[in-house]
This record gives sequence, C-alpha cells and structure tokens, in this order.
Amino acid sequence: MGEVLPRAERRRRTEGRILDAARSLFAEVGYERATIRAVAGAAGVDPALVMQYFGSKQKLFQQAVRVTPADGGEPGADEVVEHVLGTLGVKMGELPQSSLAMLRSMLTHPEAAASARRLLGEQIDRVAGSLSGDDARLRASLMTLVMLGVTVGHQLLELEELRGVPPEEVARLLRPGLRALAGPEAP
Amino acid sequence: MGEVLPRAERRRRTEGRILDAARSLFAEVGYERATIRAVAGAAGVDPALVMQYFGSKQKLFQQAVRVTPADGGEPGADEVVEHVLGTLGVKMGELPQSSLAMLRSMLTHPEAAASARRLLGEQIDRVAGSLSGDDARLRASLMTLVMLGVTVGHQLLELEELRGVPPEEVARLLRPGLRALAGPEAP
Repeated sequence: MGEVLPRAERRRRTEGRILDAARSLFAEVGYERATIRAVAGAAGVDPALVMQYFGSKQKLFQQAVRVTPADGGEPGADEVVEHVLGTLGVKMGELPQSSLAMLRSMLTHPEAAASARRLLGEQIDRVAGSLSGDDARLRASLMTLVMLGVTVGHQLLELEELRGVPPEEVARLLRPGLRALAGPEAP
Repeated sequence: MGEVLPRAERRRRTEGRILDAARSLFAEVGYERATIRAVAGAAGVDPALVMQYFGSKQKLFQQAVRVTPADGGEPGADEVVEHVLGTLGVKMGELPQSSLAMLRSMLTHPEAAASARRLLGEQIDRVAGSLSGDDARLRASLMTLVMLGVTVGHQLLELEELRGVPPEEVARLLRPGLRALAGPEAP
C-alpha cells in the first residue's frame, strides 16, 4: 500500500510479476501467440517496460521456462522407477507453469524445442545414471518419453479418458513397463 | 509437357500439389508460421489461387491433415500390441506428412488439437475394442500415449538418443510394458 520499497526490490517484484504472466500465457497459447503486449497487460505494466527488462520476447521466454533441475541422488533401478512415477503425481495434478510453457511450444518454436531437448536430456542423464547395461541411455530415453506422452495427453491435449483418473491408478498401470525398461536391479 | 488436360483434372492436380506443399510446411514449422504465401510459393501457384481453392488457412489445414483411418479387424490383446508396435516401424522411419503436420501443431493450434484428439480417440477405440476388462479404455489410452511420446521424441524433437536406433530394438524394449497394459489374453 503506502509501503516504500527500495528501487532494486521494486524492480525484482515487477520482473517476477512479468515472468509469472509470461509463464501463464506461454503455457496457455504457446510462444507464437503470446505477445509482449498481452504479457504486459496481464502483468499490469507497460509493454515498453517488458522490453526494457527482458530485451526481447525470446529472452523473456528463456527466462520464463527456466527450471531448476530436481535434486539428484543415485538411486537404483527400482527407486528410479518410483521416482519417475512419482513425478506423475505432480504431472497429473498441476505441472509447473514453466514446464507447461515449454511443453506447449516445444513442437513449433525452435527455442522451446531446444529447451525441451536440454531438459529431457538432463532427465535422461539422471535416469540413465541409475541403470546398468549398454543401452541404459536408450532405455532411460524411452522411460522419459513414456512419461512425456502421458503428460502431453493428460495436461496439454486433456484427453477425456484420463480426466479424473487418480495418479496412483496411472502409476500402477505404467509401473510394469517402466520396470521392464529399467532392467534388473543392480546386485 | 505439351499435354492438354481437362480443366477438372488440372484443378485436381493443382489442389494435390498445394496440399502436398501445405502438409510439408505444416509438418515443418507448424500451423502458426506456415503462411498461405509460403504454401503457394512451394506449390508454384499464386496465393490467390490457394484462397480460391481452399477458402482459408484453417480449411487448408483441415484438408491437409485429413488421415484415412487404418483398417480395423478385431485382434486379441497380443495382436493389438504387435499392431501398436508395428505402427512404430512406420513412425521410426517416416510418419505420413499429414500426421506430422497435425502432431507438430497439436499443442498450439486449437484446430490441430481437435484433430489430434479425434485421431487419438479413434486409435484408442480400436485398441480398447481388442482389450477386455473395466479399464480397457484407460489402458488403451496409455498404450496410445506411450507411442505418442516415443513418436514426439523421435520424429519431432529428434532426440539424439533415438537417432539410428532400429525400430525392432525400440519395439523389443517397449513390448513388455505394452503387454502389461493390454492385460491377459482373452481365453
């Protein structure tokens, strides 16, 4: 209200509001149709300020979809399946807006495709690190793509077949396939 | 060359050329960025002719992504797994341009999303028809989304992990999970 904030703090809050608005809009309509004007409108600021703070729509997008990688650890094959399935709990509920924004645009916008490849690559690295065998990276990729397909169908295409299905039920059905991909537990 | 074609035949051929160009372009850059002008250029015709023949970009898109459904039959659970995996042979090689066009745009363009839902729904119906049990549609949906995820990762995101991997190898790795989703073979 009448609170007086230091200039740097005010700027940080405004940037945060713009990024929130950008994430929502990119997630909703994708990169191509999310205009600077619309982002500014949703954040309650002037479009010129968005450009001043972020430089371009592309740079705004990069900031908006930046995700902090999940914490690591070195679990075994069984744990990694449960970890992969555990992310489904989030995914069936509400995926972070930054991930939705990236997924929404990854097939039409080169910048989003690059973000998606990088993020999926990190996920594949993490999963592969817990598997043994020559084709660990291939199997880790397929585990990741299984979850990507389910996430796209549920969160972005909103298929009616998955609506209201409890995540545990989906996890129960996917577990045998993910276990088969993870391979035998290391001794 | 000097061949004289009836007017209707000439129009049919020109329409075919425009649709081919549209499919390629929608598949490559998605709905938003595929302009009528670029389609016309690729087909070697005037943009006005594209509008005259198809009426709007949206109608052109609808025609371009129209897919003839695969033939039915009523296979059992094991056959349906092999059928689902068999489509992978196509998908790991080259998916029809019409399907690529639709997949490319399904997350950002409402018309493409509707096409994708319809097409996935038909696939889910076909697969569910071969499964028994209460949750046949849910399991059929997950089988379909597993293949969607692999297709998106391989064909649209072009993940390096899947580059050059023989389709039979991917099929071998996915088979146990799809079998588990298909459930026990009907007696």
